[in-house]
Amino acid sequence: MTGNPATGAVPDVRVTGAELHELVARLYPICRSITGDGVRRTLDILAESIPLDVHEVPTGTPVLDWTIPQEWNVRDAYIEDPSGRRVVDFADSSLHLMSYSTPVDATMGLDELRPHLHTLPDQPTLIPYRTSYYAPNWGFCLRDDVLRGLPDGRYRVRVDSSLTDGHLTYAEHVLPGRSSREVLVSCHVCHPSLANDNLAGIAVAVGLARRLAAAPRHFTYRFLFIPGTIGSITWLARNQDRTDRIAHGLVLACAGDAGPLTYKRSRRGDAEIDRAVTHVLSRSGSEHRVRDFSPYGYDERQFCSPGFNLPVGSLTRTPHAEYPEYHTSGDDLEFVSPEAMADTLDTCWAVCRTLERNRRYLNLSPHGEPQLGRRGLYGAIGGRSDTQARQMAMLWVLNLSDGQHTLLDVAERSGLSLDLLDEVAGLLCDADLLKELT
Amino acid sequence: MTGNPATGAVPDVRVTGAELHELVARLYPICRSITGDGVRRTLDILAESIPLDVHEVPTGTPVLDWTIPQEWNVRDAYIEDPSGRRVVDFADSSLHLMSYSTPVDATMGLDELRPHLHTLPDQPTLIPYRTSYYAPNWGFCLRDDVLRGLPDGRYRVRVDSSLTDGHLTYAEHVLPGRSSREVLVSCHVCHPSLANDNLAGIAVAVGLARRLAAAPRHFTYRFLFIPGTIGSITWLARNQDRTDRIAHGLVLACAGDAGPLTYKRSRRGDAEIDRAVTHVLSRSGSEHRVRDFSPYGYDERQFCSPGFNLPVGSLTRTPHAEYPEYHTSGDDLEFVSPEAMADTLDTCWAVCRTLERNRRYLNLSPHGEPQLGRRGLYGAIGGRSDTQARQMAMLWVLNLSDGQHTLLDVAERSGLSLDLLDEVAGLLCDADLLKELT
Amino acid sequence: MTGNPATGAVPDVRVTGAELHELVARLYPICRSITGDGVRRTLDILAESIPLDVHEVPTGTPVLDWTIPQEWNVRDAYIEDPSGRRVVDFADSSLHLMSYSTPVDATMGLDELRPHLHTLPDQPTLIPYRTSYYAPNWGFCLRDDVLRGLPDGRYRVRVDSSLTDGHLTYAEHVLPGRSSREVLVSCHVCHPSLANDNLAGIAVAVGLARRLAAAPRHFTYRFLFIPGTIGSITWLARNQDRTDRIAHGLVLACAGDAGPLTYKRSRRGDAEIDRAVTHVLSRSGSEHRVRDFSPYGYDERQFCSPGFNLPVGSLTRTPHAEYPEYHTSGDDLEFVSPEAMADTLDTCWAVCRTLERNRRYLNLSPHGEPQLGRRGLYGAIGGRSDTQARQMAMLWVLNLSDGQHTLLDVAERSGLSLDLLDEVAGLLCDADLLKELT
Repeated sequence: MTGNPATGAVPDVRVTGAELHELVARLYPICRSITGDGVRRTLDILAESIPLDVHEVPTGTPVLDWTIPQEWNVRDAYIEDPSGRRVVDFADSSLHLMSYSTPVDATMGLDELRPHLHTLPDQPTLIPYRTSYYAPNWGFCLRDDVLRGLPDGRYRVRVDSSLTDGHLTYAEHVLPGRSSREVLVSCHVCHPSLANDNLAGIAVAVGLARRLAAAPRHFTYRFLFIPGTIGSITWLARNQDRTDRIAHGLVLACAGDAGPLTYKRSRRGDAEIDRAVTHVLSRSGSEHRVRDFSPYGYDERQFCSPGFNLPVGSLTRTPHAEYPEYHTSGDDLEFVSPEAMADTLDTCWAVCRTLERNRRYLNLSPHGEPQLGRRGLYGAIGGRSDTQARQMAMLWVLNLSDGQHTLLDVAERSGLSLDLLDEVAGLLCDADLLKELT
Repeated sequence: MTGNPATGAVPDVRVTGAELHELVARLYPICRSITGDGVRRTLDILAESIPLDVHEVPTGTPVLDWTIPQEWNVRDAYIEDPSGRRVVDFADSSLHLMSYSTPVDATMGLDELRPHLHTLPDQPTLIPYRTSYYAPNWGFCLRDDVLRGLPDGRYRVRVDSSLTDGHLTYAEHVLPGRSSREVLVSCHVCHPSLANDNLAGIAVAVGLARRLAAAPRHFTYRFLFIPGTIGSITWLARNQDRTDRIAHGLVLACAGDAGPLTYKRSRRGDAEIDRAVTHVLSRSGSEHRVRDFSPYGYDERQFCSPGFNLPVGSLTRTPHAEYPEYHTSGDDLEFVSPEAMADTLDTCWAVCRTLERNRRYLNLSPHGEPQLGRRGLYGAIGGRSDTQARQMAMLWVLNLSDGQHTLLDVAERSGLSLDLLDEVAGLLCDADLLKELT
Repeated sequence: MTGNPATGAVPDVRVTGAELHELVARLYPICRSITGDGVRRTLDILAESIPLDVHEVPTGTPVLDWTIPQEWNVRDAYIEDPSGRRVVDFADSSLHLMSYSTPVDATMGLDELRPHLHTLPDQPTLIPYRTSYYAPNWGFCLRDDVLRGLPDGRYRVRVDSSLTDGHLTYAEHVLPGRSSREVLVSCHVCHPSLANDNLAGIAVAVGLARRLAAAPRHFTYRFLFIPGTIGSITWLARNQDRTDRIAHGLVLACAGDAGPLTYKRSRRGDAEIDRAVTHVLSRSGSEHRVRDFSPYGYDERQFCSPGFNLPVGSLTRTPHAEYPEYHTSGDDLEFVSPEAMADTLDTCWAVCRTLERNRRYLNLSPHGEPQLGRRGLYGAIGGRSDTQARQMAMLWVLNLSDGQHTLLDVAERSGLSLDLLDEVAGLLCDADLLKELT
């Protein structure tokens, strides 16, 4: 790739879909929650690929309207049926235990147990995912067909968990750029064995960080690996006076299923990130969806709360709750594919390249067209019908570079690619016909 | 109905379509015009349902660019054919006499009479409605088939009318609210025996006033029962320095025919009344039409003249001149139905409820989402796909309550009902997470 | 035509399509280029129809980023085949010689000659049009089937041209109006024997000037007959401090082919000229196209360069490069028709009339409707369904004449014709109900 010396010629580190899927597979068995050792183990594995700053925030710390909860860890959890057989066992799947379950060691009849058993009657072979972070409770999640097969009798129930003062753990990875203005990429690391939601998002974020590390960067990139909701609230609380550095942001989730890419706009609706993602998707040639902001979903809820109102959108493939496997054991390693994750990563990369190249230029010879021919920038023989795209690109960049328009504006009005416009902007800068505005 | 304590829990007085039709039937025989005893008798009947302030403005009073005309009253009017038979008789229908006809007592041939006879050749069995308020003239209106059957010979023509210095009569009905800002509801009372135009509009206005009287009111409601054109001009002239109190307004006409509801936007086009009516109609599930302002129709012409430019739209069923019975004897008691009038009234009521509840709130915890769970406002078990509408409503209200958006904005962006949004706004105010802006 | 005394009652000088075609036919044989006697001869012929101010700008004069080139003239040019037969002869068509070809007098083999021969392999019977204004070179243009038939052997090549210090020639024709604000009409006069591009545009401009000369004019009209690119750059350079007088502008080209009219918006996109042309085309009842600005085409490129950004659009029939005959000998006298040129002229005339009448008025009686009846402006008998267009026009003009809207705004909102609105605006001014804002 050649191009504008200031923004082009990027040595692109390839990260394959297979590598992404391998990372998902390693992370899959770990029992994650909003706190605890599962998050730490997850971050340790990510740190093998990219350096991380890990933050530990003590239980009880006030964060905005919330408070850091106690730390939750699990050693074991199971239900034994009257015959002593383990009919539900946390060792088989981290989904079997409702997240933040309080310790239990008791024997009880099925009637007493049943209110603590969560199933999906409409999807009897899948284990649901349930949490009770802030209301002390315990519960098990299991297949509905298993529940229906349980005999009457006395059940032994054991939850060997701890809820203790400890920490909430999250990590940052920062890639400095020439500018202190930041692109924020955030993904949640609090879900247990769910591949699409959000191990795929985590893997794509790591892959994006690896690719960006090797590229020249205008922006500083800040990756957040945080527990959902309480993690973004914690990060926002600790960075409240620095959010004005965030120029653009993306929340990544559900990055690996077979569905088309879906972009959810920031609350602002017309932020540059919104236009950049829409531009990339619309030129991708692939089916995709762009939706307006709504105050539900992932951590864009927090970044786009009205007090912050940051220019942060959300990129997923199939959005949360719109696929039957969502928040069930069906969201497993088969549900996410190397190809889909690679496609999501390529799209994130294209979005970053779009943001990087979306500069504002000023035509230094704005009265009439400058004579491109004598600068070697224009064909010598006139009269031909087939004007070359490169000449059109130069004319468009010159015409719209009045200080009001960015290169993305030029791309949208001209229908020309940002690659080509960026390239000719470099040539025009070299010819002293254009200068970049900062 | 439960809801926001500030705006909800409304004791709704039912007014039936049958009651509305009964009122129309009582008013129907009266000969109304822009002045005279017919208007006074009409207002007397309305005053049996709602208290009225009746205003009498003397002939000759200058009102804006106009002058109050002489008062017109009729005792009798008829045409006798050569055989002495009354072929046209005002006693049969108030439409037979052109409004503001000057006195006549003469005998003349059919040729001399004919220029004073108004018929509808394309609708030979209907009597047209004609007026000549400002050009002294006399005339009779009759069925075209009757006209064609008139024999040659001498006709006796008698118009026992008076045009004398007197008054223009109109009435106001005011329902005070907590705010001095007003909702104006205006209807014309100058048409003779025409049921849809505008006895149905008058009846719906009376019904709306009765329902609103029993409800808590943020706004003050001002109902005008006025002659068309000269009446609104008179009211505007006498209230010129108080029009800034009018926050929203509706002109009601043609409220009882079988056609779909039609809203004509105010001249501003994007006033809150325009958005409120459009919102109600779009959620009604019924066929309806929304049209841009045009400077013709009913008294919205005057309220929306450029010097006033008030936020006043017009609600009708089939608009003026778009039904064949318009301004003919076909606009009779059969042409309007209890069901249609009740539907128009329900729509007016829903519009008022929408205006009442369309408040602007401020999120008092705008940085991140407030923790609704610890306030008992959020389900304790997480992970479920089926987020409840009530929780979504709270998130939407919190997210958009930045001082820029009203509850109607939230309803339009979220697709949630204003009822639900209003209800949760009340809950959030109670939880000190929200406050109403005034 | 009657109408507003200030703007109407125009004595329209008819210019027939036959006259336009006759002018095209006279100009067709002349060898024009961006400089030289061909341009002067062309302007001499135009000056028989309309007075011209001819400007001569010396070679070497700096104009914006460019410099006036040497003047090019041709006495003779041909290629003789080995048998002495002239196989390409400038005397047959001015297209045969590449514009600005340097002098040559040589004998050479076909292989040496071939790089100087330009053909259209896909259109073998057409001669292409080629130029090399700024890179010294010579070349011949010929039919590809002729090229393919050339035998091997020695060819005599003769270009008896001169490139000498001289002048660039252009002309202006100015029709003063009551206002010093100008409507600019520009067309290029640098193309050789090409009928549609741009003899038709020149002829339509002359026709428009003749029609406007006989009409009362609010605006001053300035017609430019200039060589493409370097001509508009020269004119802009010499008038740089007076461009703020240009209120509206049109570049005319390709005005005579059978295709539908095509308007290309100014760079501003919403200038009054853009709205006026769109209004005229949309009411024409004929197929037409309206396109956004792009920085390629004709001299709108220069007028709309960002330093000037003038409100200048471009009117063509089929745009440049979109018809197969473009820049070939197929663009001949048969390719343009009297009917198409007359239609283009009528459209230009309608655009000018629209601009002339698109005034801003102020309602002097803005509170309520003024009483039109007592001024004789309104029908005396009320109640009729069929409101007359003239009454509606008066109500619309009064309602929207708040100082914000022009008559074109009124036309677009009301759907009424500008003719009628202009006429009633005159009546309302006479009645002291309206005054024109300046």
